[in-house]
Order: sequence, then structure tokens, then C-alpha cells
Amino acid sequence: MANAGMGTGLQLRSTVKTGGIVELSLLSVATPEPKPEEVIVRIEASPLNPSDQGLLFAGADMSTAKASGTADRPVVTANISPAAMKAMTGRLDQPLPVGNEGAGVVVHAGASPAAQALMGKTVAILGGAMYSQYRCIKAVQCLVLPPGTTPAEGASCFVNPLTALGMVATMRAEGHKALVHTAAASNLGQMLNKICIKDSVGLVNIVRKQEHVDVLKKIGATYVCDSSSPTFMDDLTEALVATGATVAFDAIGGGTLVGQILTAMEIAANRTAKEYSRYGSTTHKQVYIYGGLDRGPTTFSRTFGMAWGVGGWLLTPFLQKIGFEAAQRLRERVAAEIKTTFASTYTREVSLAGALRLEEIAIYSKQATGEKYLITPNKAIR
Amino acid sequence: MANAGMGTGLQLRSTVKTGGIVELSLLSVATPEPKPEEVIVRIEASPLNPSDQGLLFAGADMSTAKASGTADRPVVTANISPAAMKAMTGRLDQPLPVGNEGAGVVVHAGASPAAQALMGKTVAILGGAMYSQYRCIKAVQCLVLPPGTTPAEGASCFVNPLTALGMVATMRAEGHKALVHTAAASNLGQMLNKICIKDSVGLVNIVRKQEHVDVLKKIGATYVCDSSSPTFMDDLTEALVATGATVAFDAIGGGTLVGQILTAMEIAANRTAKEYSRYGSTTHKQVYIYGGLDRGPTTFSRTFGMAWGVGGWLLTPFLQKIGFEAAQRLRERVAAEIKTTFASTYTREVSLAGALRLEEIAIYSKQATGEKYLITPNKAIR
Repeated sequence: MANAGMGTGLQLRSTVKTGGIVELSLLSVATPEPKPEEVIVRIEASPLNPSDQGLLFAGADMSTAKASGTADRPVVTANISPAAMKAMTGRLDQPLPVGNEGAGVVVHAGASPAAQALMGKTVAILGGAMYSQYRCIKAVQCLVLPPGTTPAEGASCFVNPLTALGMVATMRAEGHKALVHTAAASNLGQMLNKICIKDSVGLVNIVRKQEHVDVLKKIGATYVCDSSSPTFMDDLTEALVATGATVAFDAIGGGTLVGQILTAMEIAANRTAKEYSRYGSTTHKQVYIYGGLDRGPTTFSRTFGMAWGVGGWLLTPFLQKIGFEAAQRLRERVAAEIKTTFASTYTREVSLAGALRLEEIAIYSKQATGEKYLITPNKAIR
Repeated sequence: MANAGMGTGLQLRSTVKTGGIVELSLLSVATPEPKPEEVIVRIEASPLNPSDQGLLFAGADMSTAKASGTADRPVVTANISPAAMKAMTGRLDQPLPVGNEGAGVVVHAGASPAAQALMGKTVAILGGAMYSQYRCIKAVQCLVLPPGTTPAEGASCFVNPLTALGMVATMRAEGHKALVHTAAASNLGQMLNKICIKDSVGLVNIVRKQEHVDVLKKIGATYVCDSSSPTFMDDLTEALVATGATVAFDAIGGGTLVGQILTAMEIAANRTAKEYSRYGSTTHKQVYIYGGLDRGPTTFSRTFGMAWGVGGWLLTPFLQKIGFEAAQRLRERVAAEIKTTFASTYTREVSLAGALRLEEIAIYSKQATGEKYLITPNKAIR
């Protein structure tokens, strides 16, 4: 297929401006001629993950969002607090493209055999700038989806699936035998349950509402603890005793949950201890914070001995650490199980312009469990 | 020397009682006949370290302390809160001996050559129950002090010196090039400065008072940041840029300092970054909490990217990790430099009974920098 007719495509950009404003807009960008090893993917579907919203909103207070521009070329501005601006000096006045992952069809290919072999294929890609109509990318970065897979089905092949697999791999690598996950009814959390059921790994789910308990029980989860329940700490402790989980992955970050998990792990560890240990149990207890659903401060009383750790966890360093071969095996498992273990569900599809409507932002910026958006940059919808 | 005349010795005990009381008292215990590989050490000096006070006071509120008994056999009781009692179930109604380390003279020895060789020697020992007049211990656990060293000079050979050496060793093992230390004017902090000056390791000292800045400057410290100063965050950031320190050892635990250190490390790391990294700097930043001078909650806003960790750090697991040979080399360095690098200073000497006087407890339980007590169980003082 010739590139001549393509010319340009829309691309979503996020710009932090001096004075404390983030501006979101759509630019018309030229689609480049692919180099021999590259292909052009017409992006058909890209999820709006929480991890995209950090870059998109730049820490702005989206309740201050104002709309301008036109329906086809909307512009949204919102205020960034002086405190949040401190972390933004590195991206000042740069219109950054957004969107970690997506899927689409290869519509143009460079001269190399590897690139040519992808022509017409439906592929999933990771690499930023996916909130675009067209994306130029190396052929080697394309994950070919099994025949019969739609771009919408393959849009979330990387961030959630590899994060869920990465949690289980980290648990194993660091010598833990089971794990805890918070905000566990999310798309990611449901995937993690499916992985753990399939691979016989003990998993303790923590959710914040009874309806999320029901969601997880329905897909076969064994341990689901509701942090809004008065018996939460006891329920959690019993689940930790039953599974032996000593590592947790927390999507929330702020508040007191991190400390509650460590405290319950310590009680569970001491349950089986033979004698008093003055510095608490010698079992190492770890919580990794991988998300920031609560952007407030993290607060904990250190009532869990001295053998504990809290830290950040991020997919990219994890993948770098395990190396390309090991990461490729994870990616291939995702492609093979994309309609089962790694199936995602979306509550709403929007165009690039639709993603910038204030009423949509008001919904998806809440990052509520069960509310997940899919951007379809080339569909004739708003 | 025959054991016949010794018979018994006083020993300090701490007992947590059902209902939420800690009771401190002196027991008369029989001095055992040493086995072939053992010796009896007449304890002449043992420091009252912060790490001893956790076991001694059992988390009790010492402002509620009441005295009873006699001047020679005092008894002190104090209230433990229901929250603190939760961690005490493992030691309920057990009169535990206290005192991690000390030094004294070998007054009786088992039949083995190793034990016999120690007769009359001044030795430093680690192993608990040092707040005693006599302590039976394996000969192999005795560190023989260089000739001319008094027990008072050798009383603190282990906890502070090995902790300071362990911090530098941990820094190196985990790939950091310099370190940060808080409550840095303490005995431990002064040792750490001497080690770092001698070994050419970058050290950023954080203190809470101008007079502590002066203490450290006087012994040659280069970077001393006063957290009570309005320019603290800027001062700290500049010191981190200058040294490249990305690991901190924190004696305080509670409050906001942990987060301030990580935030300053992140600013320092980004100072040299070439381009904007959406998840913050990729430099791993670590704070180890090894003490609890502030027993309140630890609170931090996560304004330091995703490459960070906070955790507990304890001497014993560190020594186990490096193994006996490596630990022995550290102990020998301490003995060789006990009057210089590892010299400790004490503000007051007390007997075992003196350590249980309410007016003394009121002072040493504050764990104020510069206020350090030495217990001398066999001196004719109060």
C-alpha cells in the first residue's frame, strides 16, 4: 500500500506551560515514510490506563478544566498547583504525545522482510504516542495478534497483562510464596486472579466495596477482603495466614493501607513463631506501590518489626531486569491468552476529540474500578 | 581463680505483665559453673543503648513510672498502652534479662585451652543479659581488648561500631557511592564520621540543632544539614548533589524526614538528567530506618518518582548476611581502633540499682543526643 494518500494524522498532545497550566489538544502530524525496519500502524484502539493519565494531566486539578477550540479540535486547559509544578520543570513547554499501548493494522511497511511480513496484520504495540491515528514503529516491537483477534481485544496487551505477570514473577524472584493485591477488582486485578488461579498461586485481594467482592468471587477468587468492613484487619490476617503471602502490590499509594497490610503480615508471621523476638518477626514483609489512586500522603505506624520494605514498582525497570528473552516469553503468553486470561473490558469508546470532552474527562479521570475507556482514533464516533 | 566465692550476682530483668504493666527489678541469680568452652566475665561496663531500651521498657509510657522496693533492690512499674501490648504477647510474664553488650574481666574459665587463655583478660562481649554482675559466655564470643584498654572504653564495641561499619558496607554492597545519616551527632553518628573521613566515603549528616552542627564540624564533618533551618531542603539537596548520596540511614523513623530525604535525592538526581522522565528519575533512592527516636507514624508524599524504597535495617540480619569471616574482620577493626575511630563517651555512670532510679530513667529514656549512660554493675556507686 502506498503512503502517498495518508499524509497526516491527528495526535493528542499534553503541554505544561509556564505559570502552571496543562493544555491538551490535537495536532495534525505528518506520517513519516517508514525506514526499512519500520511499519506504519493505523491505531484502531488504545486504552486510557491510569498510567497514561499521569503524563496526560501532568498532576493538574482536573476539576478546574476549561474547554475551548472546536468540537473537532478541542483544547482543554487546567491548573497545576505550585507543588505539582515542581516535578514538571523537565517537560515545560514541550507538547508531549500520550498513550502507552494500543493495537491496529499495519498499513504501510518498510523494505525489510520483517517489516513486509507484517503488512495487513493486526498487531499490538507498546511505546508511547498511541493516542494518534497513525504510529510509525519498528517491526520488532509489533506483537502479531492471533487470527480472529480485533484491535479492541488486543489494545491492552502490555501494561496490565505484563504488570500482572510481573507481579507474580517478582513474588517468585524475591522468595515469597503468595501475594496481596489492592484495588483488586480492576481490569488488572481480574487478570491477576485469572493468572493465579491458572498457575496455582495464592492471592489475597483487597477491595473497597462489597460489590467488588462480588465481582471477584464470580470469577473464582478465594480470598477477597473488603477494607470498608469492620472486620477487615481480622479477615486480612486470616487470609495471610492461609496463603502465606508476604508481598503486596498496591495501586492506591496514599493513606494507611500500606501499613495495615504490613501489620497484618506481621501478626500472621508471629502466629506461627515459637518464641518472642524483640525486633518482631524475622520474615521479610514487602509492599510495592505501583499506582497512585490516592495521591495523598502514605502514612504508617511502624508496628511490624524491622524486617519490612515499602517501595515503588514499575513495569519498565522490571522488564529491563529480566531481559528481552524472558520478557518476550511473557508477551507471547499474553498474545496466546488475549481472549481469556488477559481479556479487558471497557465501559466506553471515544474518539481522540471525545477523549478531550470535559464530561468524559470528569468520568475517566476518577479512575473508578469498572470504568475504563478505550480511545478509537480512526472510528467515525465522537 | 575459684568460683566458690562468687555464688550469685545481680541481674536486671524486665517483665511484661497481663493487664499492661512492665516491671523492672533486680534478681539475684546463681553464677553457673562454666562448661569447658565457656568463661565467666565480671561485667564492669555496659552501655544503655536506644536498642536496649525497646526490650527494657517494652513500649511502656515511662512518664507513668512508679518506684517501689528498696534502694538496693528497686522495683519500677509503668503502664503499657493496649496498642503497644499487642506486640508483647510473645514475652508475657517472662522476666527477660536486658543489655546487648558490655565489657569486663574474665574471672573464671572452663577447662578448654581457648577458655583458659582468656583468664584475667579484659574482653568485650555481645549477646544479651549484660545488665548483670556476672555473665557466662562462650570463649569464642569474647573480643580480647588491646592491652591498656579499660572495660569502660571497650563497653560499646559492637552495637554502634558494627552498625556504623554495616551502614558503609550496605552502601557499597547496594551500589551507592555516598550515604546520609540522621540524628548524626550521636555517638554512632560521630563514629560514622570518623569511618567516612578515614575511608574517604561521602557522608551527609542531618541533625536537628545548631549545637549538633558544631559538634560534627569540630570532628571534621564536611556536610552537616540542620533540619530546623529554613534552608534545610536546599542545603540537603546541595549536599546530595555534591556527594552523590542515594542511600540514607535514619534513626528517627517517625514524622516527615524520610520523605524529605527521598524528595531531595530526587531533585538532586534530576539536576543532572538530560530529558524529562515521566515516572521520575531512574536512580534508585533508598532510606533504611534503623531506629525509632520518633515513635509516631512515618508520613511521606510520594513526590520522588517510582525508583525508591523505605525499609527496616537491623544489625543482626546484616551480620548473618555477610557471614562470620567478614563480620570477624569488622570486629577486629573495632578492637584495633577502639580508642580512636570507635571511642564512645558517656555522660553518666550508674549501678544496676541506679539505672532503675526514676530520676535517671527520666533522663536516659529521652535518648537525647549527647546524653548516654554507662551501667557499671560491679562498682561501688549508686
